[in-house]
Amino acid sequence: MAAATRDFVERLVLPHDDEHDGDVEAAGGDALRVELQAQARAAGLLSPHGPVEYGGLGLGMVERAPVLEAAGYSLFGAMAINANAPDEGNVHLLDQVASGGQRERYLRPLVAGELRSAFAMTEPAPGAGSDPGNLTTQAVPGDGGWIISGRKHFITGADGAGFFIVMARTGADATMFLAPASAPGIRVERHINTMDRSMIGGHCEVVLDDLFVPEEDVLGEVGRGFAHAQVRLGPARMTHVMRWSGAARRAHETAVRYAAERQMFGSRLCDLGMAQQQIADNEIDLAATQALLLQACAELDAGGRASKATSIAKTFAAEALYRVVDRATQLCGGLGVSQDLPVAKIARELRPFRIYDGPSEVHRWSIAKRAVRELAG
Amino acid sequence: MAAATRDFVERLVLPHDDEHDGDVEAAGGDALRVELQAQARAAGLLSPHGPVEYGGLGLGMVERAPVLEAAGYSLFGAMAINANAPDEGNVHLLDQVASGGQRERYLRPLVAGELRSAFAMTEPAPGAGSDPGNLTTQAVPGDGGWIISGRKHFITGADGAGFFIVMARTGADATMFLAPASAPGIRVERHINTMDRSMIGGHCEVVLDDLFVPEEDVLGEVGRGFAHAQVRLGPARMTHVMRWSGAARRAHETAVRYAAERQMFGSRLCDLGMAQQQIADNEIDLAATQALLLQACAELDAGGRASKATSIAKTFAAEALYRVVDRATQLCGGLGVSQDLPVAKIARELRPFRIYDGPSEVHRWSIAKRAVRELAG
Amino acid sequence: MAAATRDFVERLVLPHDDEHDGDVEAAGGDALRVELQAQARAAGLLSPHGPVEYGGLGLGMVERAPVLEAAGYSLFGAMAINANAPDEGNVHLLDQVASGGQRERYLRPLVAGELRSAFAMTEPAPGAGSDPGNLTTQAVPGDGGWIISGRKHFITGADGAGFFIVMARTGADATMFLAPASAPGIRVERHINTMDRSMIGGHCEVVLDDLFVPEEDVLGEVGRGFAHAQVRLGPARMTHVMRWSGAARRAHETAVRYAAERQMFGSRLCDLGMAQQQIADNEIDLAATQALLLQACAELDAGGRASKATSIAKTFAAEALYRVVDRATQLCGGLGVSQDLPVAKIARELRPFRIYDGPSEVHRWSIAKRAVRELAG
Amino acid sequence: MAAATRDFVERLVLPHDDEHDGDVEAAGGDALRVELQAQARAAGLLSPHGPVEYGGLGLGMVERAPVLEAAGYSLFGAMAINANAPDEGNVHLLDQVASGGQRERYLRPLVAGELRSAFAMTEPAPGAGSDPGNLTTQAVPGDGGWIISGRKHFITGADGAGFFIVMARTGADATMFLAPASAPGIRVERHINTMDRSMIGGHCEVVLDDLFVPEEDVLGEVGRGFAHAQVRLGPARMTHVMRWSGAARRAHETAVRYAAERQMFGSRLCDLGMAQQQIADNEIDLAATQALLLQACAELDAGGRASKATSIAKTFAAEALYRVVDRATQLCGGLGVSQDLPVAKIARELRPFRIYDGPSEVHRWSIAKRAVRELAG
Repeated sequence: MAAATRDFVERLVLPHDDEHDGDVEAAGGDALRVELQAQARAAGLLSPHGPVEYGGLGLGMVERAPVLEAAGYSLFGAMAINANAPDEGNVHLLDQVASGGQRERYLRPLVAGELRSAFAMTEPAPGAGSDPGNLTTQAVPGDGGWIISGRKHFITGADGAGFFIVMARTGADATMFLAPASAPGIRVERHINTMDRSMIGGHCEVVLDDLFVPEEDVLGEVGRGFAHAQVRLGPARMTHVMRWSGAARRAHETAVRYAAERQMFGSRLCDLGMAQQQIADNEIDLAATQALLLQACAELDAGGRASKATSIAKTFAAEALYRVVDRATQLCGGLGVSQDLPVAKIARELRPFRIYDGPSEVHRWSIAKRAVRELAG
Repeated sequence: MAAATRDFVERLVLPHDDEHDGDVEAAGGDALRVELQAQARAAGLLSPHGPVEYGGLGLGMVERAPVLEAAGYSLFGAMAINANAPDEGNVHLLDQVASGGQRERYLRPLVAGELRSAFAMTEPAPGAGSDPGNLTTQAVPGDGGWIISGRKHFITGADGAGFFIVMARTGADATMFLAPASAPGIRVERHINTMDRSMIGGHCEVVLDDLFVPEEDVLGEVGRGFAHAQVRLGPARMTHVMRWSGAARRAHETAVRYAAERQMFGSRLCDLGMAQQQIADNEIDLAATQALLLQACAELDAGGRASKATSIAKTFAAEALYRVVDRATQLCGGLGVSQDLPVAKIARELRPFRIYDGPSEVHRWSIAKRAVRELAG
Repeated sequence: MAAATRDFVERLVLPHDDEHDGDVEAAGGDALRVELQAQARAAGLLSPHGPVEYGGLGLGMVERAPVLEAAGYSLFGAMAINANAPDEGNVHLLDQVASGGQRERYLRPLVAGELRSAFAMTEPAPGAGSDPGNLTTQAVPGDGGWIISGRKHFITGADGAGFFIVMARTGADATMFLAPASAPGIRVERHINTMDRSMIGGHCEVVLDDLFVPEEDVLGEVGRGFAHAQVRLGPARMTHVMRWSGAARRAHETAVRYAAERQMFGSRLCDLGMAQQQIADNEIDLAATQALLLQACAELDAGGRASKATSIAKTFAAEALYRVVDRATQLCGGLGVSQDLPVAKIARELRPFRIYDGPSEVHRWSIAKRAVRELAG
Repeated sequence: MAAATRDFVERLVLPHDDEHDGDVEAAGGDALRVELQAQARAAGLLSPHGPVEYGGLGLGMVERAPVLEAAGYSLFGAMAINANAPDEGNVHLLDQVASGGQRERYLRPLVAGELRSAFAMTEPAPGAGSDPGNLTTQAVPGDGGWIISGRKHFITGADGAGFFIVMARTGADATMFLAPASAPGIRVERHINTMDRSMIGGHCEVVLDDLFVPEEDVLGEVGRGFAHAQVRLGPARMTHVMRWSGAARRAHETAVRYAAERQMFGSRLCDLGMAQQQIADNEIDLAATQALLLQACAELDAGGRASKATSIAKTFAAEALYRVVDRATQLCGGLGVSQDLPVAKIARELRPFRIYDGPSEVHRWSIAKRAVRELAG
């Protein structure tokens, strides 16, 4: 599956990478998505993570790792096989928590690639960001459902999404809600102009203005929003790592091949000691990322929450993979910072991963607190 | 002078930064340049490095440092006061090496901001890059002058430049030539699409095709091109450091102010230990950069070549300033990777400095060779 | 087994750590070894790596990892369970390569803890060090065997060893020989006074002066010395990582407990952000070391040579574990550099691991060469 | 002066380094001190920092830097020229604050090398450590003076000191007192066994038990102990940096010379790229340390407190110089961790500097607080 995905991505997806670099229609927009997903479907590669009953391939986390890494080789690869964030994580969440009716209405078309989705939790300051306890979006009981108002930002894929999963405060607790994008009261206000540009649907600021959600579209239980979000958290961290490993690996391979061709000071660049150090450090960082990833995935497959393992793997990976791409840039010299090679673009896309999905500092804070608790009572 | 420059840049230049972000007319193009330079001239701030006889302010390297750092606070600030690369270095070179006629024809209008210039040395592989000895552009004697052919790339400011300084092989040695951009035989073939986007005139690939240069436009002595280039090298490295110090300082200040306003976990972000570490590390990196810079500038002002000191200062600065901006990004969280704050843009502009003007690896190679020579004979 | 080993080490071995710190009788000498190994034998914990037929526990590499890590919690723990370097690696080598008679004479007593052994390969410059091809010790055919002369250094455990495995040049190739320490012609010339002091038998300089080895004590095949050494290499690297992981973990735990008790600036030290960062970075480094280790061990258990995986794991671990101990030192402040806590001692013992068993630089060189071969043909 | 000091140290002091490594009589004890200081006196090199009126050389901070760096080339060099910690800082403090009688009784013999001194401020937890506000040693008014009780630790040079400067709480504030070591009530309880071993008089735990100090031996004003301590702080930090720069430079030079002689893989070690990187990084770290040091010294010479500049320079230097020595260790391979070369010993001596005189973390905390105050009000 990984080999087939790698082959598919190299042949059919990668050529599109350079056509759409940072334009408004990030990742070519839904037209390209529909085209590529049709090809992936035909190749039997669509939705590797999706439940088999809805046409997905039902791969566990360990099995999924090499497939999503292969997809990540292109910035549009995960989109092409319908395993992109946030859809991929939303599939997992719905599969665990959604009611029967919700599964039909939301999960089935999502796995099939008929629509995209968004996960609306993060808020601008002083709302829910690194500290989810600050959640300010309010849901109040209304006639046969809930009325939700608030402001969300960095909502990935919001522009063009078919539906939203919305986290809102319900009294002292929080609850998750499902809402079609067409519902009155949802407004995608702007694209936040981030340095990464390849995420279809962008990272948006979204206003919820008296959005009505009927009782049947409460996702999971009222008041258990944060608990349900935990279900999504660990696996979503790891699939990010998988995808970005592929991107970083592409940058590394590009650099090694460049260094093997470039002559300098009477030698191949790749035979100069400082270049060898960069190449070796990349191999080490990629291997350590891989090892931490697979160990966390095995924990998840075994049914654990794996919050320590996924937090460590995410934090290490976000930093290590960025180092890999940074060294690849340096190896390629002037071309490394140009669009003549894909390295600079990958660096730009990868940088925010140290912030998205929990900044490294917040992960470290939680890793340390756990260590103190375990070791010093 | 530094305070006045800082004030000028903040009031009149900075507002333009966000208007022109990565568009084809980088830095607003020459229209904005002419407008801003007129304002700088009126304020008595134009060409701080330029010879007094041509209207420059004649500042030495140590005096220049705070002025160019203040200018660097905006990505267009150095352009506004006519102290941008490569013009600033070219002024220095011409002032040292040019003949009387050349001074009138090239140096005077350059100091006055009447035109821009380019320095055409670097070539695509397998030509002159990190290893200048690979120079392939050829100059052969012609009728009353020289005929030059070759290909150059990463020629900063080439698009729209008034004249070029061209390095070409003349037999076993190399020679520098002056040529108006309008000369037949110079063709700006393309902008290399680099991650930095604020350099007016871009980084271009330039083709020289039987370019004729009359004898009177040989710059300095035939066969002494590399020696003359040394004259330009040390100071140009240091003025880069000055400008980028300003940019990095802006990112740092932005981040500190953000962290002082942002509340998190019941505290100001700037009072959390991990944020304090990032802030302190930035202060340390900025201070060390400054200290190395000023020491190298003092050596240059004293008449030395300062190649060890400038090589060390450039290498340290390029890495330290990038770390500063990277930490600033991290401190600002999601907004740090967006255009809502200037940090991500500065990071993108600054990254290539570890490669331009000699990659860190090549500087290290030469620093090490010198150390071995000095310490182990 | 790991839990029992951990318990054994904490109760019976750790108390001896502080009795013997850097004295001539490193690790208490063989008297303490005999005493502790008798206790380990009684507890059923002796020789976890040894073949079952000789009384060892026959654990594979993955099973061995937690056991040797538990042993490494004390600097004398591995010695106590007879799984110390170089004996542990020598057991593996003999088990793979030795003849039936050699097994009885050398392997059996080694597994039983009746004697210790040494592995004499490394030579002073210009001999075999990082570059084994420089081997200068010569073996020439003699009457019914071989006559060996040369000089070896950094021969761990040589002082008091029962027998030596000697690598010597036999024509263009190299061959391994077995020799009792009592053989005329072996002389332990001096202890090299290294910063680590806990290795029983020290790191010695050994002179071989017409040492006679009968034909029956050639180990493996004549001329295949380097190939046989490969058998030992990968597993020996990994058991080093296991033991040092335990030592680093002890330093980390010591520091976390210290930081949980120490009050500073109105808070527990462990709740200050910079301390949390150090604690979290330690957790990350320990986890990544563990993940790389187990992956390499699984490859070895599956019968592979695993030279890439073990090289990466060794290089990463040697650096990561030292960082762990260095941060632990910093966390403990003044006491961290004193013998009031075990941290400084562990740092001193651990530092050479970045050099022993192949310096990081040599590993990086080989990792890079392999990467270029694989990726760029 | 620097050249003469360097020559003196190399000829007369360095040979003693290896005679006394970590023995109880650290640095050879006072017998060697008296012998070496007599030689330094004869050579006109004694007390470069001391007031001229008492026979010192009266050098300012900038002038002092190369001299103390030259002294630091040997671990006993600063002792030999009577510019060791804590005496050197105590001279400065007494020169600024002491009364006329105190100058005669304490400062004069200290500058002359007739006795040594100690500065007793730091206390075991929960007393005054990184947070001086925790000071617990109490001074209460007694008959014609003060009676002081408390416990101090890490009191450098205490064993054998001629007198102590004691910081004690006097009500809400703190006061400094002078006391001869022979005074009843001062007891050097133990040497704290730290990893550094070359400081004459050790780092001791000292008990003050109803120590009587007559009114005339109050140092400075009652209640202004912390303010007076500030006088000592900045310069003492910088002279530490000077001395350790010399030690680190010796390690670096040793490594470069080793690498220039050692052959590996068909090349000189110093010509291999990874070694060149280590050598270059050492040069960069040494140069940046030097630049920060000199800038802070110039501020001090100009009469400023320079607390920001000295804090940054100390923090950077402690980390950078340790990196230098660590890379030197790595360059020297096995010999780098042995006593065959001085590198391992220097590493051991230098490590605590990241903790002594304010751990890096506490310095970073104060650097960050100042930055926030300056930039964000």
